[in-house]
Amino acid sequence: MHNFTWNSPTKLIFGQDTVKDLEAPLKAAGVKGVMLVYGGKGTFKSGAYDQVTDMLKRAGISFSDLNDVKPNPLVSKVREGVARVKAGGIDAIIPIGGGSAFDTAKAIAAGACYSGDVWDFYSGKAKVQDAMPIYGVLTVSASSSEVNGISVVSNPETQDKISMGDVHLYPKISVIDPTFQTSLPQKQTVYGGVDIIAHVLERVLDGDDGSELMDEQGYALIRTMMRVIPELIEDPKNYDSRAEYAMAGMMAHSGFLSLGRETRGDFSSHKLGHSISLLYGAAHGASLSVVFPAWSRYLYEDNPEPFVRLGEGVFGIYDGDDVDRALESIEALEDFFREINAPTTLRELGLKEEDIEKLAENARKILPYGSLKVLDADDVLEIYKLAY
Amino acid sequence: MHNFTWNSPTKLIFGQDTVKDLEAPLKAAGVKGVMLVYGGKGTFKSGAYDQVTDMLKRAGISFSDLNDVKPNPLVSKVREGVARVKAGGIDAIIPIGGGSAFDTAKAIAAGACYSGDVWDFYSGKAKVQDAMPIYGVLTVSASSSEVNGISVVSNPETQDKISMGDVHLYPKISVIDPTFQTSLPQKQTVYGGVDIIAHVLERVLDGDDGSELMDEQGYALIRTMMRVIPELIEDPKNYDSRAEYAMAGMMAHSGFLSLGRETRGDFSSHKLGHSISLLYGAAHGASLSVVFPAWSRYLYEDNPEPFVRLGEGVFGIYDGDDVDRALESIEALEDFFREINAPTTLRELGLKEEDIEKLAENARKILPYGSLKVLDADDVLEIYKLAY
Repeated sequence: MHNFTWNSPTKLIFGQDTVKDLEAPLKAAGVKGVMLVYGGKGTFKSGAYDQVTDMLKRAGISFSDLNDVKPNPLVSKVREGVARVKAGGIDAIIPIGGGSAFDTAKAIAAGACYSGDVWDFYSGKAKVQDAMPIYGVLTVSASSSEVNGISVVSNPETQDKISMGDVHLYPKISVIDPTFQTSLPQKQTVYGGVDIIAHVLERVLDGDDGSELMDEQGYALIRTMMRVIPELIEDPKNYDSRAEYAMAGMMAHSGFLSLGRETRGDFSSHKLGHSISLLYGAAHGASLSVVFPAWSRYLYEDNPEPFVRLGEGVFGIYDGDDVDRALESIEALEDFFREINAPTTLRELGLKEEDIEKLAENARKILPYGSLKVLDADDVLEIYKLAY
Repeated sequence: MHNFTWNSPTKLIFGQDTVKDLEAPLKAAGVKGVMLVYGGKGTFKSGAYDQVTDMLKRAGISFSDLNDVKPNPLVSKVREGVARVKAGGIDAIIPIGGGSAFDTAKAIAAGACYSGDVWDFYSGKAKVQDAMPIYGVLTVSASSSEVNGISVVSNPETQDKISMGDVHLYPKISVIDPTFQTSLPQKQTVYGGVDIIAHVLERVLDGDDGSELMDEQGYALIRTMMRVIPELIEDPKNYDSRAEYAMAGMMAHSGFLSLGRETRGDFSSHKLGHSISLLYGAAHGASLSVVFPAWSRYLYEDNPEPFVRLGEGVFGIYDGDDVDRALESIEALEDFFREINAPTTLRELGLKEEDIEKLAENARKILPYGSLKVLDADDVLEIYKLAY
């Protein structure tokens, strides 16, 4: 097990009817004006918007809206938010939504305390030194953005989708009320669920066998997700399934499963998936259910061990030689993705064969990456071919 | 799943050779003088004392020692520490040790900021309002005291051993260097391991089936402990096993496994065990390996379900009717305790039949407790009889 430090300063308020519990801490912190950062109609449909604004009115806190935040959120929206915060009257940010709202809020929180352009944090030109306080209300679980200091933002001008993290960007408080997620479209429940599973897979398949304890925690998370996603397809309003989904979503990418690992995880599949989202607008989760099996098939023969352990810990696969068992695990994962109607090929996403080279070109820009195998330019192309 | 809030403000520094990493944060916090709180020769033998004092000398921070803290730490020692802190020159407490040192440090930290007697916090007469900062160095894993706000202190005058918790009592930073534990006597590794397992059992056997996810996390922790305790009996210097033991010990009683549960856990076995430690000086872990099977045997016929799930999640027991499977799980747990030479009867602890009534009398003082079953005076007696 490798040395680590762990600091998880976000306070969680979890459960039904808990938005109202934000009032006391906002008042105690002396907050007078907030910016609400959110996407579109889901924020209203879930009931979250009304609950948040009612709470703010009761507290006598003014608010202004930055809406229309897109999935794979854009730096242009962040810049708009930063300019408005710099114009005054806002001393905290409240994202209402999932990863996109939270990631945008974090970017604004950092950008508002910086004299240059906020993209500098993503391009590596500058490091976050300070940020405004964030009090988040989660309505879509998947990213763990509610409990981490990570922000992923896209810049179409440079064709980049870049992740950046800093300790200043942890929300002060995150409210997780699973009832807000009962109104999500089925597709979003499925893709979010794939993303949560992928966050675990990036760790347990990273090639570091030094922390069986943390691997076991990860396998338990995947088993839970494989149980609750079908339950939620059947009955989207099942509160306990939503709650377990929200808990798993919070834990999977909080950094907790990375404790003691040599790297923070492999994350090649996320990087290869980012290019599919950026160039072809695929949902993040859909890009992952396509890439993960392809990446796995490309690597397992030379690196069967983590797949063998995944097979034991998640799928109950104990028989056969290592390479056979590894393949059986990958097939079981693909079967599960198909069972919940998540795509497993680029073709299903509507891509053509000639798109493969474009994807590879984009995904090569930030090479090298990967931990189980450090990928090179050829690897990237071959994995996309397998994904086709 | 039940609503909860979660706040885990302690920063962890985990791994080999990490005591030196306390220097920068101590200096940044402006600490000038500390009190070192520890037990006896283990603190020196482990190398922890030298590493801490070397670090303090480099940092130019003065220190004074409060040593001879006993297992099941005493309020008299706490009072001694409080008086010395009130005399001046100390602005932070550094426990070096396990639960006893940390629990004593927390009590001193709270008592030093209070005008009355520190026992008031334990008797329920007063609530902690403030506390001095604690920077801990863990040398014995088991209590999770390094990451929680709980302090358990004994008062022989009143024959009480009482647990008290407050958010002010979380250590600012805890350093967990598993190498300090390689010099522990085997008995302590075993009893600490039983305590860690018991912390999980108190949760997964509490009768709340609303959070399968958290139960699965708990089963994975127990499986890890059942793997690493025998590894450490075989080779006490196995770093990876020590590290997994320390991680599991940190997680088991941090409160994390209580998230979403109706209660924080059952904890009857801990309370029944406390009387054995208080009256007959039994090691905390030894009291638990005796009480847990007895408590389980007393309850399982009317409440087989949590034992059935424990059997599936930990011992691979899938066949038979519920009551049979529950009993098989309890037997498997007892077998494991015997395999690692942990006692499973009061007799093995040297108690006589006439001691049972005395134990029951003491354990009844703080009734009612329990969650799977709320115990009454008769239940307590019957469980001790089964434990004999």
